[in-house]
Amino acid sequence: MKEVVAGIDIGGTNTVFGLVDNAGNILCENRLKTTDYPKINNYISALSAGINNLMQGHTDLKLKAIGIGAPNANYLKGTIELAPNLAWKGIVPLTDLMKKKIDVPVVLTNDANAAAIGEMVFGGAKNMKDFIVLTLGTGLGSGIVINGDVVYGHTGFAGELGHTIVIPEGRDCGCGRQGCFETYASATGLVRTVLYMLSEMREESSLRDIPASELTSKKIVEAAALKDPVAVEALDYTAKILAFGIVNAVSFSSPEAIFLFGGLAQAGELLFAPTREYVDQNIQSIFKGTVKILASGVPENNAAVLGAAALAWNELKKS
Amino acid sequence: MKEVVAGIDIGGTNTVFGLVDNAGNILCENRLKTTDYPKINNYISALSAGINNLMQGHTDLKLKAIGIGAPNANYLKGTIELAPNLAWKGIVPLTDLMKKKIDVPVVLTNDANAAAIGEMVFGGAKNMKDFIVLTLGTGLGSGIVINGDVVYGHTGFAGELGHTIVIPEGRDCGCGRQGCFETYASATGLVRTVLYMLSEMREESSLRDIPASELTSKKIVEAAALKDPVAVEALDYTAKILAFGIVNAVSFSSPEAIFLFGGLAQAGELLFAPTREYVDQNIQSIFKGTVKILASGVPENNAAVLGAAALAWNELKKS
Repeated sequence: MKEVVAGIDIGGTNTVFGLVDNAGNILCENRLKTTDYPKINNYISALSAGINNLMQGHTDLKLKAIGIGAPNANYLKGTIELAPNLAWKGIVPLTDLMKKKIDVPVVLTNDANAAAIGEMVFGGAKNMKDFIVLTLGTGLGSGIVINGDVVYGHTGFAGELGHTIVIPEGRDCGCGRQGCFETYASATGLVRTVLYMLSEMREESSLRDIPASELTSKKIVEAAALKDPVAVEALDYTAKILAFGIVNAVSFSSPEAIFLFGGLAQAGELLFAPTREYVDQNIQSIFKGTVKILASGVPENNAAVLGAAALAWNELKKS
Repeated sequence: MKEVVAGIDIGGTNTVFGLVDNAGNILCENRLKTTDYPKINNYISALSAGINNLMQGHTDLKLKAIGIGAPNANYLKGTIELAPNLAWKGIVPLTDLMKKKIDVPVVLTNDANAAAIGEMVFGGAKNMKDFIVLTLGTGLGSGIVINGDVVYGHTGFAGELGHTIVIPEGRDCGCGRQGCFETYASATGLVRTVLYMLSEMREESSLRDIPASELTSKKIVEAAALKDPVAVEALDYTAKILAFGIVNAVSFSSPEAIFLFGGLAQAGELLFAPTREYVDQNIQSIFKGTVKILASGVPENNAAVLGAAALAWNELKKS
């Protein structure tokens, strides 16, 4: 019998789940629509049936544990709490509910922490004990690993670098405050920066022909690759603020590496090169040359399921 | 035989050392002038002789370990590196040198980390696993404890909150950069804020009669206690920036408490009350009400020796 874990990625729209071996191979995978189950009990029934179905298709496999990545997840309590993009209100005791259906260890953490554990177990951080993963998507998520463990803090919600304030009285943030890191260093942040640059700069730009509501980080990166002056300037500014947040994080926990992940990180060297330069220029001298800025070593399209599976494997290793 | 450790606080001017039992009682204490020993070997000879002298005065004691707090100390390597305020240049292998003289476990960390361990072993953090100590003196030092361990990071120099940048392009810092937390939230920072307020405000103030070179945080706090408008405004602004740095640290590691320590913390409620208010107003909502702002529970005048001793006791517990 080959041992596997189930990795589950709960998103606002879809839930993806797969069986993953300890080398990071996804042996099989399926999905369901999260929005089809406004009642949590129905959702848990459908999800556990889905996993049981995958297992029945592979009689040579033994399920050892279940790992789940979800928004607003609390690792310490095994709950999803007040998630704005999920239908289930209040505090959902997700691991307890799941364990009643499938009696193996069930662990839960948020998406960015799952990404960090994925990096540690299957990706570029295999031999690292101190590193940070920044997921640069609609917002900015972060998973912080110190001394080989994800930082959860007193509340279970630590690692919210996206909501550290980098520009006092800066851009309005969805959290109700101003100047948060994620309002600049994310795919959405890049779009906002382009809108600002369009107001400040007089240069011609292909981005002037796209309505604000249709601007995406992908279109901006494509324009930057063609040397569009507004796109280039916006990416440079994004890298500057990203570096600023990185420099402050380094003064806090002195990681060996920062991994960049998610939509905006797809910009590749157009983002990485200026980010590295700004980090080098602005880092506290005691940390100069001590921190690598790296692309994630986990394949983007499978990262969420792999991260959740890594969480489960990591938990089994601890016990 | 009663077991004790030696706690040593190496300062730029003086070195204080004492024998400390596991309840935090300093049984005896002595000091030497650090500046009398520009050669490290002579310093180590004098310091070890000093400790041996203390031991010879107490034949009922058994020395179990030595803990040392020093500027620019690297816990991981046991070295003092490039300390600007010490005569010994380059990288000093302090624990190795000391261990050759007195053959017990020798551990070294920087002053702020020693303060954090002192808080955990003898002070207000006895039952806490996640907290931060901020030492608000000439600069701002920080000791960060996560999951019961001091954060050292990949390099051994983690926990430099004083050099996270809180105001982009703000005040010049001794580190060569601008806007560092310690240029605002420290005794020196308060003096700088008073100078700024004297330029901005037109109100009468007793502080206008003191030359800039003679302004101290103590004089400013005394004036604030008498409702001097400039002193009150300066303390309020200092609390605001202090809270700002605290709020960002909470988003990082979600501690149970922040302990304030050092000269500026002597301001008491004049500083603590507005700091708590600003933290409450500006903290990320998920962390609201989860973090206490506390005065250190370690007596200020003995804190450095107790912190170094706590480091030694803590190390013995680990092994």
